[in-house]
Amino acid sequence: MENTHDFRLPVVNLIGMGAIKNLYTKLLPYKLSKALIVTDKNIIRLGHVEIVEEILKDLFISYDIFDGILHPDCTISFVEDALTYFKKRLNILKKDYHFIISVGGGTNHDCAKGIAIVATNGGDIEDYEGYEKMTKPSLPVISINTTSGSGSEVTNITIMRDDSRGVKMIIADPKMMPIISVNDLRFMETMPPKITANSGIDVLTHSIEGFVAIEASPITDTLAINALKLVFGYLRRAYKNGNDMEAREKMMFAGVMGGMVLNNAGLGYVHSMSHQIGALYEEMHGACNAALLPHVLEFNSLSIPEERILKISETMGMKATDKQDAVNKIKHGIQNLCKDIGLPIHLSSIGVDENDLELLSKNAEKDICSITNPRRGTFVDIMNIFKAAM
Amino acid sequence: MENTHDFRLPVVNLIGMGAIKNLYTKLLPYKLSKALIVTDKNIIRLGHVEIVEEILKDLFISYDIFDGILHPDCTISFVEDALTYFKKRLNILKKDYHFIISVGGGTNHDCAKGIAIVATNGGDIEDYEGYEKMTKPSLPVISINTTSGSGSEVTNITIMRDDSRGVKMIIADPKMMPIISVNDLRFMETMPPKITANSGIDVLTHSIEGFVAIEASPITDTLAINALKLVFGYLRRAYKNGNDMEAREKMMFAGVMGGMVLNNAGLGYVHSMSHQIGALYEEMHGACNAALLPHVLEFNSLSIPEERILKISETMGMKATDKQDAVNKIKHGIQNLCKDIGLPIHLSSIGVDENDLELLSKNAEKDICSITNPRRGTFVDIMNIFKAAM
Ligand SMILES: [Fe+2]
Ligand SMILES: [Fe+2]
Repeated sequence: MENTHDFRLPVVNLIGMGAIKNLYTKLLPYKLSKALIVTDKNIIRLGHVEIVEEILKDLFISYDIFDGILHPDCTISFVEDALTYFKKRLNILKKDYHFIISVGGGTNHDCAKGIAIVATNGGDIEDYEGYEKMTKPSLPVISINTTSGSGSEVTNITIMRDDSRGVKMIIADPKMMPIISVNDLRFMETMPPKITANSGIDVLTHSIEGFVAIEASPITDTLAINALKLVFGYLRRAYKNGNDMEAREKMMFAGVMGGMVLNNAGLGYVHSMSHQIGALYEEMHGACNAALLPHVLEFNSLSIPEERILKISETMGMKATDKQDAVNKIKHGIQNLCKDIGLPIHLSSIGVDENDLELLSKNAEKDICSITNPRRGTFVDIMNIFKAAM
Repeated sequence: MENTHDFRLPVVNLIGMGAIKNLYTKLLPYKLSKALIVTDKNIIRLGHVEIVEEILKDLFISYDIFDGILHPDCTISFVEDALTYFKKRLNILKKDYHFIISVGGGTNHDCAKGIAIVATNGGDIEDYEGYEKMTKPSLPVISINTTSGSGSEVTNITIMRDDSRGVKMIIADPKMMPIISVNDLRFMETMPPKITANSGIDVLTHSIEGFVAIEASPITDTLAINALKLVFGYLRRAYKNGNDMEAREKMMFAGVMGGMVLNNAGLGYVHSMSHQIGALYEEMHGACNAALLPHVLEFNSLSIPEERILKISETMGMKATDKQDAVNKIKHGIQNLCKDIGLPIHLSSIGVDENDLELLSKNAEKDICSITNPRRGTFVDIMNIFKAAM
């Protein structure tokens, strides 16, 4: 019987305080001469893009900057705007950009991947919705991360809002895996507490959903458990004191591991459902996950082996007597963490409207993350999970 | 203060029973048309190369086969022979090979990387000894693994015997990281018990040396501890019954994780020293490691935090009261495992001659793996470790 578990990651991942400096030697051998930087005005204001520009200048790489990412949620229109910009800036010799550098959080990386796909494959970004629809490798992407949490800098997945359909569109394909990711702690010192909380809970969700997802492997399991341990050990500290660099560093590593997990084990209903809330309400992704995770876990527990549930509660520091006891303890553990870092634990507090639950459930059922959820649910099941989380 | 931990891996890693089949879709987008397969006659005889040939034929990729790897220890002369073959087979249009596929264990991958380096960078393979000496990316390498253990299929390191100097020469550079690695269980069913034992102990050594190496990060730590757990859980079973596919699968995952650890955390004196024995005596790498590991750990323990030593013994299933107690228990645990899988625990049983220890120590001191050993030792220290292991 076949039983395969691909594991995919950018070939080079620069991690740690000062890691950005190593980008110079990593880029040098590739003799690239023209780059497009994809970012937003806030990241430029924080001075992060300037640091990248210095490196490009030292390498004699010319570049343009697209800063048209207007809010923290990658949207198809941003990708379209960037592609228009992209085409306009090609010089008279039609010399294309050699590569794209995204500077920012998951939103910016997701947009950059979208641009990179269409740049080499042509057509519209919507043509590539789903799994492995690209025929050619994307333009090379270098993802410089300034917000640890989404994991997007190490994934071959891009998620963007499709406002015409009111859904999140997902594209997954190893042919657009970034070639280099950078997680430099110096970029993360400026993360405000709200972002720290939201992205931290996103990491928590990636580790728990990935640990019970149907594509999990021994490699993703060990990364998931360790990311989970780091979240419970350090998220409260990173939230309370943004200058606690030890806590920030641990959360950064947790974020990278969470990205490795979600890319290779898959996710589940928490993400299927929170994607739809994000599409409709522009709410923070982490907060949606926080409200949904305990209820999805309760629903899924029927299909998860007892030892896995016990492993999660044990990693969170709680001994449980049996499966149900563990599920309860995990629920409380997550909710207590959320309270401590200022996140709501009910969807109603986020502003989700009871009347939208039907539409949300319909779209969640079709979301690509549902494929790897450990328990198959019906439309009614998903509605009930939404209701429980209200 | 700067504190960086690069993490490097082939971008795509196909793992599991039947994984080789996915090579077709992974290669398709790259429109490659000419490959050089690097392997040995035994691997051809086992039918493994034929499976790869079928995939290349389906993709209309033409190929040649170099089968001049003559013994299980990559040697500079093999790389030179392959390069001569390589140049001869370029067709009249001087159309180069687009990529190299290595089929086999670590030896074959190491040779393939050596060929790939010189193919694009020119000169002699010796020119690239050390760390990051290449100026250009190597020819792309796809490493198809048939022996789990060395981890070479997922590393940017190649080790080869330099008979003129009687040492192992090491080249490390992310520019020669394989682009795709394949670990398909079907290729490993044929591994004889002696290879299972040797490569399993190699994995054990990668995990313990990497866990205490100075470049260790939270990512390599979690992979190291899990690889170690899998070795103690499954190596005896895989050795006793080669048809125990669950045990084989776990050891395969342990091997991949061990490769990720050694590539990114570094190794230490066990490898520095066993490389030299391998250069002089052509002995199995795993057996040398097995004899050295307990004594290197004893020497290093002074520089390793107590919690790390306790974590190792705990992972091996033994509670220890303090550091020294843990070191003793780890030593016995390793030696008991070696006895159970037919490996010698003394260098004298391997055939190491007391009179060679001076030369071995001199060369070990200069080995690249010594750089990441947690405790700096003198020539005399290394001599004493060798003597203790005799
Ligand atoms: Fe997420
Ligand atoms: Fe080794």
